[in-house]
Amino acid sequence: MMKANSLEELALHSLQDIYDAEQQALKVMPKMMQAASSQELKMALQQHQQETEQQVQRLEQLFQMMGQKPQGVTCVAMQGLIKEAQEVLTMQGDPAVKDAAIIAAAQKLEHYEIASYGTAATWAELLGMNDAKMLLGQTLAEEERTDKLLTQIAKRTVNARAV
Amino acid sequence: MMKANSLEELALHSLQDIYDAEQQALKVMPKMMQAASSQELKMALQQHQQETEQQVQRLEQLFQMMGQKPQGVTCVAMQGLIKEAQEVLTMQGDPAVKDAAIIAAAQKLEHYEIASYGTAATWAELLGMNDAKMLLGQTLAEEERTDKLLTQIAKRTVNARAV
Repeated sequence: MMKANSLEELALHSLQDIYDAEQQALKVMPKMMQAASSQELKMALQQHQQETEQQVQRLEQLFQMMGQKPQGVTCVAMQGLIKEAQEVLTMQGDPAVKDAAIIAAAQKLEHYEIASYGTAATWAELLGMNDAKMLLGQTLAEEERTDKLLTQIAKRTVNARAV
Repeated sequence: MMKANSLEELALHSLQDIYDAEQQALKVMPKMMQAASSQELKMALQQHQQETEQQVQRLEQLFQMMGQKPQGVTCVAMQGLIKEAQEVLTMQGDPAVKDAAIIAAAQKLEHYEIASYGTAATWAELLGMNDAKMLLGQTLAEEERTDKLLTQIAKRTVNARAV
């Protein structure tokens, strides 16, 4: 059973959750890249893969700041999101339609992370942890940028071909 | 195995997914409301519960527009998100900290829906389904407003007490 007597304890649990979630995401992203047909989409996913590796390192810095060992707790929400993404990867049909589905699945992953980092950044601010807030804000901005980029790719290339 | 030979087919599948997701959300929201301590948070969740009921009706209108019966496909991602929310509901500890955790869990649900409706609205636009786009955009705006409201509640009441 989950326990949290302080916001700091809750924030630590939340970091452990997203630490696990990012590592799950790192495993599925190469598969999404491989399943994609659009070069632009492949490149965006590859770029975000590299960004995610840095985000994991940033989380490790945060654990250190809190005097904790980097450690994940199984993120069941990300497990569900990835299960849904995997359905898309084995999807049969038109490649452009499949690309549209891959973008949709990737944006759902991004939105989980946007919610997580948004909350964590707010909590860091309330706890007076300014360095932590800055690191979390940096990652949050990257996730939001990736989400917007995926929408752009969908709008200008993939969806137009999928219609 | 998932199949989609056209964007329309993919969009229908996506509506079936969110139709199921909303119904799952409708079941968990009263529990979140009950577990919350802050009156403001309880009210926000109750308001969103009513909004969600209308959103489900809007989805039923969309199925009708597409000449389909309203029908869900199990949304495994929402199942994971709700499993995570349920951990929070049985959480032991300070009530204000628990409220902060409930807000975080609710925002994760909202972000799943924001990603889903955002994608569906884009696809409706590309398919030239302007009425559908309008209905989806209306729901999207409600989800985004709820997400922002939850952040405000967290910032001005819950988190301040949780520190």
